[in-house]
Amino acid sequence: MSIKQKLDCLFNPKSVAVIGASSFLGKWGYNILSRLISTRSGRQIYAINDREEEVLGLKAYNNILDVPGPVDMATITIPHEHLTEVMRDCVRKGVKIAIVISSGLAECGAEGAKIEQELVEIARLGGMRLVGPNCLGHFDAHSRICTLGFLPPVRKGNVALISQSGNSGQSVLSYGFQMGLGFSKFISSGNEADLHFEDYLEYLSNDVRTDVILGYVEGLREGRRFIELAKDITKKKPIVIMKTGRTDVGSQAARSHSAALAGSDAIFDTALRQCGVIRVNTIEELVDVAVALLGQPLPEGKRVAVLSMGGGMAVIAADALRREGLELPSLSPATMDKLDSILSSRWSRGNPVDPAGDFVSYHCLWPMIEDDNTDAVLAVGAVGMGAGFLGWAPNSMKRDVSRMRKYMENADLENVEKTLQLMDKWRKPVILTAGVTGTSGNGRVPKRLRRSHRNLYPGPETGAKVLARLVEYSEYLRSTVEDTAEIPGRGQTLSTTSI
Amino acid sequence: MSIKQKLDCLFNPKSVAVIGASSFLGKWGYNILSRLISTRSGRQIYAINDREEEVLGLKAYNNILDVPGPVDMATITIPHEHLTEVMRDCVRKGVKIAIVISSGLAECGAEGAKIEQELVEIARLGGMRLVGPNCLGHFDAHSRICTLGFLPPVRKGNVALISQSGNSGQSVLSYGFQMGLGFSKFISSGNEADLHFEDYLEYLSNDVRTDVILGYVEGLREGRRFIELAKDITKKKPIVIMKTGRTDVGSQAARSHSAALAGSDAIFDTALRQCGVIRVNTIEELVDVAVALLGQPLPEGKRVAVLSMGGGMAVIAADALRREGLELPSLSPATMDKLDSILSSRWSRGNPVDPAGDFVSYHCLWPMIEDDNTDAVLAVGAVGMGAGFLGWAPNSMKRDVSRMRKYMENADLENVEKTLQLMDKWRKPVILTAGVTGTSGNGRVPKRLRRSHRNLYPGPETGAKVLARLVEYSEYLRSTVEDTAEIPGRGQTLSTTSI
Repeated sequence: MSIKQKLDCLFNPKSVAVIGASSFLGKWGYNILSRLISTRSGRQIYAINDREEEVLGLKAYNNILDVPGPVDMATITIPHEHLTEVMRDCVRKGVKIAIVISSGLAECGAEGAKIEQELVEIARLGGMRLVGPNCLGHFDAHSRICTLGFLPPVRKGNVALISQSGNSGQSVLSYGFQMGLGFSKFISSGNEADLHFEDYLEYLSNDVRTDVILGYVEGLREGRRFIELAKDITKKKPIVIMKTGRTDVGSQAARSHSAALAGSDAIFDTALRQCGVIRVNTIEELVDVAVALLGQPLPEGKRVAVLSMGGGMAVIAADALRREGLELPSLSPATMDKLDSILSSRWSRGNPVDPAGDFVSYHCLWPMIEDDNTDAVLAVGAVGMGAGFLGWAPNSMKRDVSRMRKYMENADLENVEKTLQLMDKWRKPVILTAGVTGTSGNGRVPKRLRRSHRNLYPGPETGAKVLARLVEYSEYLRSTVEDTAEIPGRGQTLSTTSI
Repeated sequence: MSIKQKLDCLFNPKSVAVIGASSFLGKWGYNILSRLISTRSGRQIYAINDREEEVLGLKAYNNILDVPGPVDMATITIPHEHLTEVMRDCVRKGVKIAIVISSGLAECGAEGAKIEQELVEIARLGGMRLVGPNCLGHFDAHSRICTLGFLPPVRKGNVALISQSGNSGQSVLSYGFQMGLGFSKFISSGNEADLHFEDYLEYLSNDVRTDVILGYVEGLREGRRFIELAKDITKKKPIVIMKTGRTDVGSQAARSHSAALAGSDAIFDTALRQCGVIRVNTIEELVDVAVALLGQPLPEGKRVAVLSMGGGMAVIAADALRREGLELPSLSPATMDKLDSILSSRWSRGNPVDPAGDFVSYHCLWPMIEDDNTDAVLAVGAVGMGAGFLGWAPNSMKRDVSRMRKYMENADLENVEKTLQLMDKWRKPVILTAGVTGTSGNGRVPKRLRRSHRNLYPGPETGAKVLARLVEYSEYLRSTVEDTAEIPGRGQTLSTTSI
């Protein structure tokens, strides 16, 4: 059986055994089993527990060998001292793939490393594959399997995540959910004693449900293989990586966490750049970039026009873009004319476009998107301004104010729809950010935008970072792919499906 | 009359005239007047409008010269063409200080600059001072005066903000409100034709209501004076500055926005460091650092102990602290012993402290705070984890789950109270951050923490940045102030008042 077939079993097993199943609320064995039951979709679930008759309404088997039918996959949460024994039983039972959640292995020193090595040998001799140990589990949102003990709400989608840390992975999922990102598959790869990051990566490259691959990495075990794989994959699917353990203490901490050797950060950086992998620095950026890859076409260059609802935010935006190496070209005479006809004479008359007191809307965006001098637009506070600050009226005018508020909120929503139409029509990236810090999360406008992966990013800095990653990826593709019509996102986005 | 007396008039005038007062909802003249009326606290408000009899229930005067009583302060929103005439009237009327909201002046080129120069000459000859032009207004949360046209909700407090941008200033206020920051005074300084950033800074240094001074700066007009002032002030009150216009295009944009000359960023940076000013890079950081200055004592050194709810976040935290130049010392043998007795044998047995699967709480924090090897603690996910991910139970256990959820939420709140008690007792900075990205905003725990300015920061990166700014400020003070007992925040925080 190939790794692909084994991983097919992982993501859609017909039968699953939970070794260490428990009736005690809060225990891993409880959390995992209860989740498996609630999402079972017709698959067989077996509870293995040598002290109870029944667990969560299921008959409990003393040993996996007592299970009547075949078992595709086992998830194991028992203390590390008993792992080798249980692993031998799994092999004897013909289990195809086992997820070892248990920790206390290579990440804890020589003794644990010895046990871990034994586990790998038992599995390999028996033709079984191993996820983990010291991992958090996995899920497939399409086949509806989940072995995670703690799961934030997850939306079904086309982004896969491989994480060498369980809790960092949870953070990506949690923040991803908030940002409207949908996931196809998730693997917490743990110590990677047997299956490596590279194995999952290769599998996901062929997964039709996955259009973007995200990774949280502390150290790669097969650097050369990763590069070869990534070179191929990034031509079709973007890979976005957050690599930690970048500093002396960070890399030490990575070693004691996932037994990973962090290696030189500079070398890693160069390697990623050479194979078209998008590197990000934070969990937020990992999600933000993934959203943009789904909702925006790739820019054809790095010339950015900025529209800002105010001068200060325009300066911040210009600084942020320049720090990311992007350019702010002059606008074409035609664009200048159009803006002159829309805005008051006080406007900045250049790029960034600052209307100096006027409200901005899709009317201003339009000529900026159309302009041949620009490859992308960063719009700060052009949508989502609502009527938030209208609230301090004298009693005599309360009714007028509430009518005005409604009018402004509706105008804002209409403005969003028109802006989205423009984006669909012109196929240029238009990155929208909040004009007032801290207002990107709630309200109807951010929600509406999230539905088509055109998020309202928190501010110009985030917008500039996201745009810069798109530009880098696009530049890489243009320099390596012969037929630019094959570049993903050229003239189209990876996903325009509503969620 | 000294500048101080004029600015006293600005922040607590007995009488105010709104030149350009309007009954039209949405106009500046409407917004400002309606706000002034609603917060008038006994002061005289006069509406000046030459086309109406009455505005918002007030008698409208044709001209400020027609107002019967004296006028301390005037706010002016009329088009720039009519400014010089109105300015002359203000002088004749004996107005002490005028806020010119109107734009279209020096920021728009030579013609506007000429008018602006005339305004300054008229004011100076007449003994009147001028805020702006091209500004958004100001407020004093204690005397309850507000000339801002658009105001997010503001909490009364002890932080002052001087902003060379109206909309950036609004962002600081808006984000500050969300983060629980209370403001004393705000000035949007605009083009600073007459009164400069430095004038406001000097005034605020003597303001008993202000303990922390924040600034959004695009370019300083009196660099040398700023440095002299800051040197004195930072010994008693922290100054935190966000300076933009740092790049080529950014500095150009600043010129067309607030007519500011940005100057060399590197020189500015060095100057700030030499006078103990805390420099930050984003609006979020400006607010985050202000909160920490209020809620945390200053660290005595840069040795940080990290407690993390998971290994991945521990690595991220270590990287973030090292990037900021902070150190992660070994924990003392006593601390190691205590943690050994609390945590399972799988814990990382070093700094960062990763419990490897166990929940962390104030029990773990305690020895880390007590430890003489540490000057501060960064705790990731040590509070605020609640029971968010407990929701997928089979029907048969729904009641147990909801009981468990309540139990965990209460345990979390109790944990917060114990943690706060520890912080009060040990007087070391303890920076708390969310353990799962995107969970720092809502819920009872973040709210409880905001009440005493011990915010739950979004993640390790933010926490590390905030801590690094406190360390830098503390190091500066220790190197310049002779009697360290005089250092603000040493053994005490600037504010422990609940909000």
